[in-house]
Amino acid sequence: MSDQPYPAATLQQVESSLTGFFQDLGCQLKEYGPERAVVELLLLPRHLNNASNLHGGVTATLLDVAMGLCGTWVEQPEQRRVATTLSMNVNFSAPAPVGSRIRAVAVRRSAGHKVFMASCDLLDEKGHLLAFGEGVYKRGKLRSELP
Amino acid sequence: MSDQPYPAATLQQVESSLTGFFQDLGCQLKEYGPERAVVELLLLPRHLNNASNLHGGVTATLLDVAMGLCGTWVEQPEQRRVATTLSMNVNFSAPAPVGSRIRAVAVRRSAGHKVFMASCDLLDEKGHLLAFGEGVYKRGKLRSELP
Amino acid sequence: MSDQPYPAATLQQVESSLTGFFQDLGCQLKEYGPERAVVELLLLPRHLNNASNLHGGVTATLLDVAMGLCGTWVEQPEQRRVATTLSMNVNFSAPAPVGSRIRAVAVRRSAGHKVFMASCDLLDEKGHLLAFGEGVYKRGKLRSELP
Amino acid sequence: MSDQPYPAATLQQVESSLTGFFQDLGCQLKEYGPERAVVELLLLPRHLNNASNLHGGVTATLLDVAMGLCGTWVEQPEQRRVATTLSMNVNFSAPAPVGSRIRAVAVRRSAGHKVFMASCDLLDEKGHLLAFGEGVYKRGKLRSELP
Repeated sequence: MSDQPYPAATLQQVESSLTGFFQDLGCQLKEYGPERAVVELLLLPRHLNNASNLHGGVTATLLDVAMGLCGTWVEQPEQRRVATTLSMNVNFSAPAPVGSRIRAVAVRRSAGHKVFMASCDLLDEKGHLLAFGEGVYKRGKLRSELP
Repeated sequence: MSDQPYPAATLQQVESSLTGFFQDLGCQLKEYGPERAVVELLLLPRHLNNASNLHGGVTATLLDVAMGLCGTWVEQPEQRRVATTLSMNVNFSAPAPVGSRIRAVAVRRSAGHKVFMASCDLLDEKGHLLAFGEGVYKRGKLRSELP
Repeated sequence: MSDQPYPAATLQQVESSLTGFFQDLGCQLKEYGPERAVVELLLLPRHLNNASNLHGGVTATLLDVAMGLCGTWVEQPEQRRVATTLSMNVNFSAPAPVGSRIRAVAVRRSAGHKVFMASCDLLDEKGHLLAFGEGVYKRGKLRSELP
Repeated sequence: MSDQPYPAATLQQVESSLTGFFQDLGCQLKEYGPERAVVELLLLPRHLNNASNLHGGVTATLLDVAMGLCGTWVEQPEQRRVATTLSMNVNFSAPAPVGSRIRAVAVRRSAGHKVFMASCDLLDEKGHLLAFGEGVYKRGKLRSELP
């Protein structure tokens, strides 16, 4: 195995290692490669705002998760690094109703020694742009490097 | 009643009118006046990221909710307007562990005819700064103006 | 003529109609079409910061100019609209030394009735990413609509 | 001397050590202390946009300069550190005409080992808010630590 997106089995292994808010929200990891991650969510009533559309906080969460992942890919999934968000920005371009299946597609844009940057689009099933954002992240150590 | 923060009973009435993701997360509206809103959350395990700290998406949600509220206050709570986020930015300055009681304190910074801007600090019980952000919002119509 | 990028002569006409800070900095408009604008700058000593690299303010200016243009293109150049920035965000990914010829490539990402959103990459001659950003803008009226 | 804002003579010494775009624009350093910096500019015709108001790029520059300074203060001015911008965001709340004397007031919000964060308001003579922003910066080494 080399610099390739994960096959389905590895994808599921990584997905189930993601804890807390990712699972609570109902996110799914659909694609994960060296510089790209795709996270999907089926919009339920609990994800909405008072105008009955996708809540801005859900949008921000999906972008944050996908961008954090796209800069911490490692060949060996059990070596998973953590990403720490330093800063993120989101622009909201269109609403989405309950029942939408939305996808955050994040791409790593730069990578230094400890800091990486990413941008991310949030799309609906038809590829319509719902939001887009960008972020700056600190890349954690490999699990094998941790004390 | 005039340009005053809501008394406790009104606060609770407004809080219970907030639906979807606000309730799902477990947010509480602690203070709400003409240009200021305070939203509180007790950090539960489901709000954490893979490093066992406050998830960036939860931070963004709290800031978004508090900023949206601070620019849409109306004297008569049953007239509630909706706020639509155009853009938001968050800087993350410190982690917070499970059990923390965190507060997003949002202040309206400017208000035009249809657009308002806000900034927001996220603090823990000791007043330590966890994150800060700013956003641009579109202010919806009063309920009585809606068709 | 229809929904096409401007030919060279029109490009120069539009460029010379841009006043103030655009000219002061020494920017050139290299490409301008319905949803895309490219602004170029040759880095002079006066554009640098204290570390002798491209100043963050110059980066922000180039992105702001190119994004403002990409959402206000009109078929008839003498009808030029103005763009008003509501919010912009910039991530800085690499330094650039004096003598670099840098290009801000802006793309319109969404357009509503009055507000448009854009993202923009700043590249050097070799296509290396120096910075990237995104913004929210208000689109002004056509000159013929102004009082 | 200890943790105090610089007296006038030191302020001028630091101001004249700032090169490039800061000087080119005509900025003045009006106040500089451990966690706060104030940069002033008299708006000239060359600082304007096509709508004859303060250009967004000038706003971004003033905020970037003031925020970079507020996190790199040192007791001994000849030891000056450099700040590298990782990310910055600006919201634009009001226009300003030529002849305005505008001030960027930056405050350090957090400081880690290598990264600091700041927020900044841009005000006119009457204290009216023209723009506000926030940024993430890397703090350079002290001059005496450089090779």
